Amino acid sequence: MKIKHLIAGLLMSAVASGAMAQNAPSADDLIKWRQSLHQVLAWNMGRLKANVGGQYNKAQAQKAANLIAAIANSGMGELYAPGTEKGNKVKTKMKPEMLTDAEGVKKAAMAFSQEANELAKVVNGGGDASAVKSQLGKLGGTCKGCHDDFKNK
Amino acid sequence: MKIKHLIAGLLMSAVASGAMAQNAPSADDLIKWRQSLHQVLAWNMGRLKANVGGQYNKAQAQKAANLIAAIANSGMGELYAPGTEKGNKVKTKMKPEMLTDAEGVKKAAMAFSQEANELAKVVNGGGDASAVKSQLGKLGGTCKGCHDDFKNK
Repeated sequence: MKIKHLIAGLLMSAVASGAMAQNAPSADDLIKWRQSLHQVLAWNMGRLKANVGGQYNKAQAQKAANLIAAIANSGMGELYAPGTEKGNKVKTKMKPEMLTDAEGVKKAAMAFSQEANELAKVVNGGGDASAVKSQLGKLGGTCKGCHDDFKNK
Repeated sequence: MKIKHLIAGLLMSAVASGAMAQNAPSADDLIKWRQSLHQVLAWNMGRLKANVGGQYNKAQAQKAANLIAAIANSGMGELYAPGTEKGNKVKTKMKPEMLTDAEGVKKAAMAFSQEANELAKVVNGGGDASAVKSQLGKLGGTCKGCHDDFKNK
C-alpha cells in the first residue's frame, strides 16, 4: 500500500507542478503529447499482441514492454493538467471527470502503472508467450477501465 | 565498434521484419506512430531543457531521460519501413533518402541511440544540471543531424 500511495503522490505532484510551472506548455501541447503517448502505447500493445499471437520474439517483446513501462513511469499525469479539458486548435476526448474525480484517477493511474511494470517484469524475466499474454490482458484491462471512465467515445 | 554494429544490425532487422510481417500495420499507422514518437521525444526534451535551465528536479529529469532512452532502444527503425515514404490519409515529411541511404541512416540511428543512453546514464548516475545540459546538447545534435538529412522542412 505504501508504494501505491507513493506512486499516486508522484502522479498528483506532477499534475500540480505542471500546472504551476512558468512558461508552461500550452493546453494544445499537453493534449497533443498525451495523444501521442497513447499512440505509442497502441503501437507497442500491438507489437506484443502480434508476438503472443504468433511467433514469440523475446527481443521485440522486451523493447515493447520496456517502452510501455517507461511511459507508465514517465509522470504522464502532468499531461492531464487543469485547463486541458478543452484545446484551442486540438480536440480532446478527455471527460471532465479526469479533473474532478481525483480518487478515480488515482486508482486508474495506479492500476496502469502496476500492470505495466509487472508486464516488463514478466517479459524481461523470461516468461513464455502464455505468461506474457495473460499479463498483457491484465494491462489491457486497465487501459479499457480508464477509457470507460475518463474518455469520451 | 562491436556494440555499434549490433545496434545497427538490430535496427536493420527490425525494419526487415516489420516489412515482411503478415497482417502488418498500414503505412498510415507506421507514419502516425513515428510522428507520435517524435512528439513524445519533444515533450521530454522540453522537460529536460526546463530542468537544466531552471531548478533541477532530478526525479523528473530521470523520468524524461528514461523515456527517451526507452524510445531509442525500442526498435523504432521498423516505423520507417519501405512503403512509408508516402501515406494514404496521413502526410509525412520523411525524405526518400531514409529508405535508400542505409549507411547514413545507420550512422544517425547509432548516434541517437548512443547519446540517448548516455543521457540516461548521466541523469541516473547523479550528474548535476551542468553535466545533464552538456549531454542534452549532444543528444539534441543527433536529432538535428537526422532531421537535416532525412526530414523535409
